[in-house]
Amino acid sequence: MQIDLVFTHIPITDEKLSDRTVVMVDVLRTSTTICVALANGAKEIIPVDGVPAAMQLLGNLSRDNVLLCGEKEGKLIEGFDLGNSPSDYETEIIKGKSLIFNTTNGSVALTKMKTAKSAIVCSFVNITACAEFIAGKDDHILIVCAGNNRQFNLEDAVCGGMLVNILQKKIGREMEMNDGTEAATIIYHKYKDKCLQMLKHSFHGKYLMSLGLGKDLNFCAKIDSCNFVPVYSEGVVKLDMH
Amino acid sequence: MQIDLVFTHIPITDEKLSDRTVVMVDVLRTSTTICVALANGAKEIIPVDGVPAAMQLLGNLSRDNVLLCGEKEGKLIEGFDLGNSPSDYETEIIKGKSLIFNTTNGSVALTKMKTAKSAIVCSFVNITACAEFIAGKDDHILIVCAGNNRQFNLEDAVCGGMLVNILQKKIGREMEMNDGTEAATIIYHKYKDKCLQMLKHSFHGKYLMSLGLGKDLNFCAKIDSCNFVPVYSEGVVKLDMH
Repeated sequence: MQIDLVFTHIPITDEKLSDRTVVMVDVLRTSTTICVALANGAKEIIPVDGVPAAMQLLGNLSRDNVLLCGEKEGKLIEGFDLGNSPSDYETEIIKGKSLIFNTTNGSVALTKMKTAKSAIVCSFVNITACAEFIAGKDDHILIVCAGNNRQFNLEDAVCGGMLVNILQKKIGREMEMNDGTEAATIIYHKYKDKCLQMLKHSFHGKYLMSLGLGKDLNFCAKIDSCNFVPVYSEGVVKLDMH
Repeated sequence: MQIDLVFTHIPITDEKLSDRTVVMVDVLRTSTTICVALANGAKEIIPVDGVPAAMQLLGNLSRDNVLLCGEKEGKLIEGFDLGNSPSDYETEIIKGKSLIFNTTNGSVALTKMKTAKSAIVCSFVNITACAEFIAGKDDHILIVCAGNNRQFNLEDAVCGGMLVNILQKKIGREMEMNDGTEAATIIYHKYKDKCLQMLKHSFHGKYLMSLGLGKDLNFCAKIDSCNFVPVYSEGVVKLDMH
């Protein structure tokens, strides 16, 4: 098994993905919020790469069953129904709905994975389920850390490294790694028992706390609170039914 | 002191640099080769961001005192005088010459630093000199790892982390770090006594060995074999005369 990891979605281009199982990691907060939304009954998530794309898609859908969700600079976007806090995605609000999802990093990263052989959404909250999904593939895996504004971030690197670590224990044999995978596993070992502490220490974690969203970090640090894998296919993210 | 680090030059834009001292790190091999060329008497290095830019510049200069240098995919470019192996830059070939320098990552990264308050070139071979240069500034420092083809690479991360480590010991007080700086120092501690081993293990190190350029790795691993700082200013790299 070859397992590569990149620290931002910038190097991702379509042609590299057709033979890959791709894992999108955006701990704070897109991956976590997607997991929570699906756990609480959302029908599907439709990631988009900007507000214009979100509005265009909204015009094509029946408004009754659709919610506009996401953030800009961490905050609710004007005219949108929901922000990007996992705790906002309560069953009574989202059950059965299609969620158009526009975020700065994670949703953009997902839209770049349309041509992947298979693409899944990973965070701390569903990391063991993701490792099990991947372990079933004899494949070329690419972990895409969404990063923050085209740059490396700590939390996605630690999550990517943890995923590789769990996977390595599961498959019990050597994996070929690129430099990014190697680095992520080193960074993970520094923080492995200190997930929440690491989130509070990270640049984006501090920024969210400055916005009064510190509670989101607790949510995002709950390792394995979900036991399923969101799969991105044909432009929408749904629960894996396999 | 605020010390930020990015793992590729992709997020670098001019407007971020005017109040920064910027350090360009491209261990394999641009930073190392620039150090060796200046140590061996080259008059100056003129980094460019592609073969067309190199040819245009050549047309404006007297061919007698100019050499075309650099690589594409690690190899000598057709029609160029020298490749990117440090050992090619011998005194009898380069003394007093201006070197037009075109490489995949490092020279491109340098051309993005034109507006920086101050920009220097760092590799393992001159890392303590670079730390001393920076320690003299009460400044906002940005370390730019050139990376490899828009992606993270191990050797530049380890070098960046080592630079931060030396600097921290020199200035003896807390530094503010971004997530990239923090990660680089963690990665550095994994490899600190195994510089050559790390280069041989890295993706690009393996690639250079596959081209028969393994000797370059020995050159690039010689910590502090130079005791000066190449400074990039007004479009050219020269020795720091301060």
